[in-house]
Amino acid sequence: MRTVDPYKVEARRQQILGAALTCFAQNGFHATRTAQICAAAGMSPGNLFHYFPSKAAIIAAIAEEDCKAMTRLFSQWDTAENVLDAVEHIALAMMQASSDPQQARISIEVAAEASRNPQMRALFAANDAQVKADLAALLRRGMAAGQIDPHLDPAMAAVWLVALTEGAIARVVLEADFQARAHQPMLRLIIRRFLCPPQPESG
Amino acid sequence: MRTVDPYKVEARRQQILGAALTCFAQNGFHATRTAQICAAAGMSPGNLFHYFPSKAAIIAAIAEEDCKAMTRLFSQWDTAENVLDAVEHIALAMMQASSDPQQARISIEVAAEASRNPQMRALFAANDAQVKADLAALLRRGMAAGQIDPHLDPAMAAVWLVALTEGAIARVVLEADFQARAHQPMLRLIIRRFLCPPQPESG
Repeated sequence: MRTVDPYKVEARRQQILGAALTCFAQNGFHATRTAQICAAAGMSPGNLFHYFPSKAAIIAAIAEEDCKAMTRLFSQWDTAENVLDAVEHIALAMMQASSDPQQARISIEVAAEASRNPQMRALFAANDAQVKADLAALLRRGMAAGQIDPHLDPAMAAVWLVALTEGAIARVVLEADFQARAHQPMLRLIIRRFLCPPQPESG
Repeated sequence: MRTVDPYKVEARRQQILGAALTCFAQNGFHATRTAQICAAAGMSPGNLFHYFPSKAAIIAAIAEEDCKAMTRLFSQWDTAENVLDAVEHIALAMMQASSDPQQARISIEVAAEASRNPQMRALFAANDAQVKADLAALLRRGMAAGQIDPHLDPAMAAVWLVALTEGAIARVVLEADFQARAHQPMLRLIIRRFLCPPQPESG
């Protein structure tokens, strides 16, 4: 006899994480109390505790979900023939995600908390390192295929691709009318010009 | 008879702002109490109140100092003949400033607070708008001089130059060994390739 339905468990977990993200975006990690997350999720503290024993466990699960989402994004482009297209699409998807107002606030909270809490930093730094490693691997493949400038340092180039997409975060906060979609052509142009092999000198 | 020495007043103001920045970087705007700033500045509350009537007044003064620093930076390059050089130097200086660990933490606090507090947002959004306007003006001058690709939208290009330099902020938090200086050549390359007029097709 099955006593636990794994789909129901996962649905409940997602319900709690969604409620927690709303609370964190509104009040920050620090100021959010577990009771607020319970209220937002429509759940008793005992019930929530069954899924996540602490606020730290919720934050760890959020980092894990982030990591899974990035893995899914990269896996879509794993075997793409045109690596430049792949990098461009991944970067645009990252910029689009960063510029979601709730996501932007969460990113700022993550940065604020990570700058003070070594455990938080380790959690999100591991995700960041994975994204950079995946990007660098893509860049190396593009270099081997002659699609990306082979003189670039792939690890450093990956750092600045991430930095560029994260640039959207402050934009969302400081520009009332910031629309990620309107900026996609410019971001695409920057990435193309940055990564393309230089044209041979005209003669 | 002079009763107030303006140099002494300014020195005292700077002393308080320095102490406040240290406290804000450590504990955030929200959690920092005026008493802590007094202690860090070695000043009585009454004395501090004489210079700044509230924590909000201190934050406003920090925004004003930021604005002045940026105006000084741009004025150094006002009449530069090579606009591409000017933009590059300004962007590198901004990235270098963003990657100072204390400055990075303050920037994150500004973003966190601005996302919840409309007055804070207005204060720092005004600075941000000024920097973008100054950059866009430089870009237009470079376009007129044939040094910068005239097909770029100067306002949008300015947005991404700012976003790029702000990318250093998250790097400082997430990468234990991030050294802005080591990344300068890559940032310079991205800016050059982004802004230079495209080479004519080789033939």
